[in-house]
Amino acid sequence: MALIVQKFGGSSVRDADRIRNVARIITDTYAAGNEVVVVLSAQGDTTDDLIDKAHELNADPSKREMDMLLATGEQISVALCAMAIEKMGFPVVSLNAWQVGISTDSNYSNARIKDISEDRLRAELDRKNIVIVTGFQGVNRFYDITTLGRGGSDTSAVALAARLKADLCQIYTDVDGVYTADPRVVKEAHKLDEITFDEMLELASGGAQVLHNRSVEMAKRFGIQLEVLSSLDPKPGTIVKEVVKKVESTAISGVAKDDNVACISLIHLTDKPGVAYRIFSLLAQKKINVDIILQSIGRDSTKDIAFTVSKDVAEQAMQILEEHREELDFVGMDCDEKVAKLSIVGSGMINNPGIASSMFEALYSVGVNIRMISTSEIKVSVLVDLSDAEIAMNAVHDKFFRAKR
Amino acid sequence: MALIVQKFGGSSVRDADRIRNVARIITDTYAAGNEVVVVLSAQGDTTDDLIDKAHELNADPSKREMDMLLATGEQISVALCAMAIEKMGFPVVSLNAWQVGISTDSNYSNARIKDISEDRLRAELDRKNIVIVTGFQGVNRFYDITTLGRGGSDTSAVALAARLKADLCQIYTDVDGVYTADPRVVKEAHKLDEITFDEMLELASGGAQVLHNRSVEMAKRFGIQLEVLSSLDPKPGTIVKEVVKKVESTAISGVAKDDNVACISLIHLTDKPGVAYRIFSLLAQKKINVDIILQSIGRDSTKDIAFTVSKDVAEQAMQILEEHREELDFVGMDCDEKVAKLSIVGSGMINNPGIASSMFEALYSVGVNIRMISTSEIKVSVLVDLSDAEIAMNAVHDKFFRAKR
Repeated sequence: MALIVQKFGGSSVRDADRIRNVARIITDTYAAGNEVVVVLSAQGDTTDDLIDKAHELNADPSKREMDMLLATGEQISVALCAMAIEKMGFPVVSLNAWQVGISTDSNYSNARIKDISEDRLRAELDRKNIVIVTGFQGVNRFYDITTLGRGGSDTSAVALAARLKADLCQIYTDVDGVYTADPRVVKEAHKLDEITFDEMLELASGGAQVLHNRSVEMAKRFGIQLEVLSSLDPKPGTIVKEVVKKVESTAISGVAKDDNVACISLIHLTDKPGVAYRIFSLLAQKKINVDIILQSIGRDSTKDIAFTVSKDVAEQAMQILEEHREELDFVGMDCDEKVAKLSIVGSGMINNPGIASSMFEALYSVGVNIRMISTSEIKVSVLVDLSDAEIAMNAVHDKFFRAKR
Repeated sequence: MALIVQKFGGSSVRDADRIRNVARIITDTYAAGNEVVVVLSAQGDTTDDLIDKAHELNADPSKREMDMLLATGEQISVALCAMAIEKMGFPVVSLNAWQVGISTDSNYSNARIKDISEDRLRAELDRKNIVIVTGFQGVNRFYDITTLGRGGSDTSAVALAARLKADLCQIYTDVDGVYTADPRVVKEAHKLDEITFDEMLELASGGAQVLHNRSVEMAKRFGIQLEVLSSLDPKPGTIVKEVVKKVESTAISGVAKDDNVACISLIHLTDKPGVAYRIFSLLAQKKINVDIILQSIGRDSTKDIAFTVSKDVAEQAMQILEEHREELDFVGMDCDEKVAKLSIVGSGMINNPGIASSMFEALYSVGVNIRMISTSEIKVSVLVDLSDAEIAMNAVHDKFFRAKR
């Protein structure tokens, strides 16, 4: 007998048919002799509908009241799912996060889980109940409802799995696993059987948003094995864990493309000490994340600095720098949104020094110009023109995967 | 400074405009220097929509899960109302029944309030917050959500008022008070300024359903002054309290008509001791409430017994009696649904022996036949043909109110 935590997202429970489907997956798992704890998100568009209702009354409501409002979405999901399971004749109980004792800090709308009380969960499992818990939420020390922010239900699932020392945490989504590249862009992309936590993290930050990084980080920290799989297509998905036996000879796990990138360039910056520090601390103060940074080698008394940010904060970043133009002493500023970041990720890279150059070779072979390069221990990212992104992605995927299949 | 509890029903908060209207009433009360605790029902059709969703998955879900589901309705109302009040610049906090500590028994879907913890409420009031609480619900000793059944939000409001020793509990509805008769039937009906708890209870059981009896009984027990008034038409409503100074010389407070009545007759019952006891204990075992009972005076060895029940249980009552036909030994059974009960209610009746005969005189004057009569200390009810009901009601109202205005 294993203890399995299963998480289903909003599209997996969006209507009665989908809920019945989810109920079947849950009861099959239970009938196979497992203890099952389920985490659900709000149904389909429920959260958006509630936000609309709120904004009709107040464009800027307090986060506390917003959390109070939004938490109803998951409560509806768990009650309905429990009813569907009752109908199938299985013992089941639905619980709110506050009933489970999922304690968080008081950072409304983006709270962090501090602790989970095991008592109620354990009692319900001992009564042989299937336990359905509201994802995305918790309760703070004032007994007020909090929500966990983006990827919150994944985080709830992993946290519950960690607390209960679950054997497996299954994250059901609308894709059937993690792919070597986005199948919509690369036809030859194939599903991975296994991937490491670190690779998953790098793939996600490279734009392949299957799991939220926060939940992957937590799974890594507590050693919880994850499985990403589809609620509509019942077959094994991709296992995410600490160490993966590489059956394939390739050193990389996947190719990711991120279009949500803008490249900001500061031209003819006076070359004095501390100027780079000043630029990036100004941006950090406003919580703007900078990704790749390129600095030209100073020829005269000036140099150029270029860096990438996500598109949605590009304008804000430009404005901050413009406000400090005199102090920073640059001649021109430019923002290019027609770029994409292409990344290859793989823990095998560390022992394979030729990986980066193989990537560059692939890009050269299809005539794609590299504008910026960034490397980490298990990732190489390059910035290319947006118009080149798909051909570049296919070329790189071919280079590493075609021969190896 | 007074402490006022205000309760608004589902139609009073059914959309953004209505919520804004309610927020104005609340903040006006607060701005006048009062402490304000508000109890809200679920918006308009929310509860019915949730029940539909449930039944799509399970025709007979457990009451526990149904309560879990339905409780979201009030949570949405309180969060939205709090946001509207925030927008107007007033300090406010919304709370679920479990956060307030409204403890109930575990009779899901029809729970009784056992206790309310004052701590959180008092703390929020001391912080000068307007407090918005979910009506209709509580939490049992397992920390599971319960709901209070019909009239639940009125009950929540009165219970909170009792616990906080509130100066007044205002029940906002879609009528502007309690009338001497239903204004849709009796044009001359007028609003009462005051009415006693007992009169209110008798009026309600006579068919004038403005307040749920459970909440009136609780208000009487704890001596909480109620006011029934309209959320859409801001003017004083009707005060319900223990003792009322009668300004008017009339001894009665109102005339009520109840169409939801069926009259069942058992014909030629063998006249032996205990037969009436047997009939009504059989019905009581199935929790069927019998209202007026008429027993003919036995002429030969048989007698007839007739009684009224509400229409929805008439068929069930007939079936029970049919099953025991042999034992009860009656010749015929008949059910007449074309009847109505007309009641006059007034605590002044006790000291005015002529009241009942005045009512009968009024009915005689318009040629209405009385089929059954029932009296209590402050009420006289008669059963008449349904087709006579409106003319009868007007005649009785005229008799007691026209001359006195």
